[in-house]
Amino acid sequence: MTLSFNPELDLTITRIIKAPRSAVWKAWTQRALFEQWWVPAPAKCRIVAMDLAPGGAFVTRISENGGDFQPHLDACFLAVDDQRRLVFTNALTGGWRPAEQPFMTAVIALSDHADGTDYTAHVMHKSNADRSMHEEMGFHDGWGTVARQLAELVEGKA
Amino acid sequence: MTLSFNPELDLTITRIIKAPRSAVWKAWTQRALFEQWWVPAPAKCRIVAMDLAPGGAFVTRISENGGDFQPHLDACFLAVDDQRRLVFTNALTGGWRPAEQPFMTAVIALSDHADGTDYTAHVMHKSNADRSMHEEMGFHDGWGTVARQLAELVEGKA
Repeated sequence: MTLSFNPELDLTITRIIKAPRSAVWKAWTQRALFEQWWVPAPAKCRIVAMDLAPGGAFVTRISENGGDFQPHLDACFLAVDDQRRLVFTNALTGGWRPAEQPFMTAVIALSDHADGTDYTAHVMHKSNADRSMHEEMGFHDGWGTVARQLAELVEGKA
Repeated sequence: MTLSFNPELDLTITRIIKAPRSAVWKAWTQRALFEQWWVPAPAKCRIVAMDLAPGGAFVTRISENGGDFQPHLDACFLAVDDQRRLVFTNALTGGWRPAEQPFMTAVIALSDHADGTDYTAHVMHKSNADRSMHEEMGFHDGWGTVARQLAELVEGKA
């Protein structure tokens, strides 16, 4: 389906990644690669579940400052379109069950670009208040940092 | 994906409908038929949106006692498997956006039965408290009544 951007409710980051879509997709969907960029360094990421299908669980944990791994994301995939798009939400958990703390749906879109891949992370909220909270929590810094880490990994600069 | 029943969190109704799956599917997916059974008579139903695809909006309104049409369901389809299964949730609205009042995900499953169709509505909640609230709101009576209305319609008794 075609999604439209609502500036009152949504946040977006885009980045041109100098690598083909296939490489970006691989870094998103292969666990050993994904864990290298999904949280801002030096924090570490561990995948608990990454069931790449509609309804599949998507659960990650994070370790900051060398501490124990703590809950990070507990979400559910909604769409997995090979090398084109991933959609997931934390309004649902794996198996499409309603979640305790719903907040956002993310659409990760990859399209061809003269220099490689046009990479977009589009994040939808239920209200302007939630959008503002996410922005104040550091959306642009956080999602921007990990998009940079993803780019550096697939561009061979990591 | 295979879904498992969690008796602490889920509610289910089943009914053997004496008509083929194709007829039950038609009554679910053709607007003029669907509006005839989706709310308990004599209340009336009006479809606002029924975009039968993952991410598609599913919005209905209800008129009770001859009054104005009021909000009823505001949901999003998650899976639409022809003549087999429909999954929708009110944790999201159309386009997969997080909803203001998330509560349940419903899985409607049709399978062949010697007498016609084995019809199941499986409803998932985030907590036992939500499950209990739904049960006390009259889940079995409400969903049971409309399953009977659906059966009567496709069995030619409506």
